[in-house]
Amino acid sequence: LTSLGVELHCRCIMTESKPIGRHIQKVELIPANSHCEETEIIATLKKTGQEVCLDPEAPWVKKVIKKILSNRS
Amino acid sequence: LTSLGVELHCRCIMTESKPIGRHIQKVELIPANSHCEETEIIATLKKTGQEVCLDPEAPWVKKVIKKILSNRS
Repeated sequence: LTSLGVELHCRCIMTESKPIGRHIQKVELIPANSHCEETEIIATLKKTGQEVCLDPEAPWVKKVIKKILSNRS
Repeated sequence: LTSLGVELHCRCIMTESKPIGRHIQKVELIPANSHCEETEIIATLKKTGQEVCLDPEAPWVKKVIKKILSNRS
């Protein structure tokens, strides 16, 4: 059940361990909120449009986000 | 026109200058791609679900993203 697109639970069950940076079309950062205690990161893949959860603690994930923000993607 | 949700042009025309960190429900990072030369950051606001473009260079934006990633949001 979502109202205004607000998820009423965590969306990620497991996270992708393999570095898939070059396949990422976009990344969604969802801060912890009343319905989900953890920050969630959901990447959309280029070719398939598939959504994949990433681990906010994983070094390669932090590197991918840093790279996107510095416009060197 | 979008295929598989891939935007065929830049989505942001202007960016929000006021620090609106506490109103942000989630943030979308879109790396530069063949259709848009710049990294784009699109925030969805909590109450209204409204989408707002943020400036990747703005210090307050970098702080908001850092805070989300460190799970201190």
